[in-house]
Amino acid sequence: MPTLFRKSREMRNYSRLQKCEKRLTIGLVPTMGYLHDGHRRLIRESKMQNDLTVVSIYVNPLQFAEGEDYDRYPRDLQRDMSICEEEGVDVVFAPTDEDMYPEKPLVSIEINGLTDVLEGKFRPGHFSGVCTVVLKLFNIIQPDRAYFGEKDYQQLKVVERLVKDLSLNVDIVPVKTVRDLDGLALSSRNSYLSSEERESALSLYRSFLLAERLIKEGKKDASFIKQAIKEFLLSHDGVRKIDYVEITDENLRPLETVEESSRILLAVWVGNTRLIDNWRIGCEQV
Amino acid sequence: MPTLFRKSREMRNYSRLQKCEKRLTIGLVPTMGYLHDGHRRLIRESKMQNDLTVVSIYVNPLQFAEGEDYDRYPRDLQRDMSICEEEGVDVVFAPTDEDMYPEKPLVSIEINGLTDVLEGKFRPGHFSGVCTVVLKLFNIIQPDRAYFGEKDYQQLKVVERLVKDLSLNVDIVPVKTVRDLDGLALSSRNSYLSSEERESALSLYRSFLLAERLIKEGKKDASFIKQAIKEFLLSHDGVRKIDYVEITDENLRPLETVEESSRILLAVWVGNTRLIDNWRIGCEQV
Repeated sequence: MPTLFRKSREMRNYSRLQKCEKRLTIGLVPTMGYLHDGHRRLIRESKMQNDLTVVSIYVNPLQFAEGEDYDRYPRDLQRDMSICEEEGVDVVFAPTDEDMYPEKPLVSIEINGLTDVLEGKFRPGHFSGVCTVVLKLFNIIQPDRAYFGEKDYQQLKVVERLVKDLSLNVDIVPVKTVRDLDGLALSSRNSYLSSEERESALSLYRSFLLAERLIKEGKKDASFIKQAIKEFLLSHDGVRKIDYVEITDENLRPLETVEESSRILLAVWVGNTRLIDNWRIGCEQV
Repeated sequence: MPTLFRKSREMRNYSRLQKCEKRLTIGLVPTMGYLHDGHRRLIRESKMQNDLTVVSIYVNPLQFAEGEDYDRYPRDLQRDMSICEEEGVDVVFAPTDEDMYPEKPLVSIEINGLTDVLEGKFRPGHFSGVCTVVLKLFNIIQPDRAYFGEKDYQQLKVVERLVKDLSLNVDIVPVKTVRDLDGLALSSRNSYLSSEERESALSLYRSFLLAERLIKEGKKDASFIKQAIKEFLLSHDGVRKIDYVEITDENLRPLETVEESSRILLAVWVGNTRLIDNWRIGCEQV
C-alpha cells in the first residue's frame, strides 16, 4: 500500500526529506478522488518522469459554488488506495478539511481572461478555489512536476498561467483526455449518470466528430459550427441544457474562424449532471 | 560586498544549494531599495535569526497605480549595496523588470476584508501587486523567514494572511517601525519632502501623541479621537489632504470604542507626497 498522509505537516516533512536529503524528484497528481482510468494515465506519466509519485485526494469545498454537487460528489478512499497500490503510487495525501482549512480562507485569485470566461462564468468562484488549493498543494508537497488532464482544459490553462505569473518552480505536464471505447470522456461525475443518460452523454463526443466533418467539408465559420453542435446536442432527449459551446485558440480566446488546432469547449447538462468536454480540431484520435 | 544576483534563475539555484545541501537557513528582507535605518533594523533581525540574509531590491511596477510615483521613486543600487555590505548581508537580489515580468502578469490576488480597505481603497490594485511580487520572491528565494516593517502595517497583515491561506512554508516576522529622533517614521518617500514639508510631516507622529493623551484622559469614542486627529493634522499648512484616519483592531476591523492595543492608521498628503503611518495605542515608545 502507498503511504497515507492525512496531515500537511507530515506530507511537508516527507517531501523535504526526499527532495533535499535523498535528492529524489517528486511528481504530483492532484485529484478529488474516485479515481478512474484518466487518473491512472496521469499516474503512469508521473511514474515515468519522477522518482516518487504523490497522489493527492481532496474534494476541495472551495471550488464548489453554493448549490453544486459538493455533498454528493463520490468519495471512496479505500477503493482509491487500492488503485494507487496497483499503479505503484508512493504516497497518497488525503488531508482532512480541518487540516486544509483551519479557518475559511479570505484569499481570492483570478486570472484575467482565463478565470472569467467559460466555466468561470457559470461557476463563479470555482477557479479561485482551484487556484487556492493548487497553490496549497504545491506549497505543501513541493513537487518537481504536476500532472493535469486536458479533460479540464480551462483548469490546465489557469494553472499553467498561475505557475508562470507567480514564478512557481514546478513543471505543469498536460495529459490527454482518456475516453471510454464509445467516446465518453472519463470523469468521476459519470457515476451520476443512469444508463439512458449515459447514452445521451455520448452526444458530446459525437458533436466533436460532427464538427470535424463539417470543418473537413470546408465550413470554417465558428458561429456556424457552434450552432450545428448546439442543434445536434439538443436533438438528444437527455440533453436538458447547454451552458456554452465555444471555439477558441489555445489560450481560450474565442475565434470567428476555425483553424487547425482550434479547440471546441462545451458544458452540457444531461439530466441533473453537468458534463464538460473539449476537443482539439484535427489533432485528436476519433 | 554581498553577492549580487540580477536573475531569478541564479537566485533560485543559490537558495537550493544553501538550503538543501548546506542545510543553512535563509532570511529574506524584501525592499524597494533606497535603504534607510528601518531596513537596517530588518536586516539585523534577519541576521540574528538566520544563517544567511538575502535583501531583495525591486521597485515593483505592479503595485503602483496609474499616476502614482513609480517613475520618480528613488533608486540607488550602489548606495544600497554599500549599506548591505555594512550590515553584512550575504546576497542582494535585484532582478530586472524583464526577469520578473517577461510578460505582463494576468493574475490578481485579493484578500477579503484586508486588501479592500484603507490603502486598498485609495490605491486600487496595490495589494494585488504586492501579493504577486511577494509570492514570486518567496517562490524564487525560498526563505525560511521574511521580515516586514510595521510601518506598512496593512501590508504586513495582508502578507501574514496570504501565507496562512496558501500554506506557504515561511515565517513572517514583524519588525517595529523605526522613527527619526523627532518622530517621523522612516520611509524612502521622505526623500521627496522639502524641509518645510518635513516639518509638516511631523504632525502625523504628533497626532498619535495627541490621541494617546486624549485616550489617557478617558476619551474612548473612536469617532471623537479620529475627528481630533483630523483637525490637528489639517491645522498644519503643509498638510494638503487626508485620505483616511482609522482606528481598528489588529485585523484592521474598524472599532467604535478605542481599546488598549487598538491601532490608529492614517494616510496624509504633505504637498505632493503621500505619507502613511500607524500607531498601536498604549504600546509604543513616544
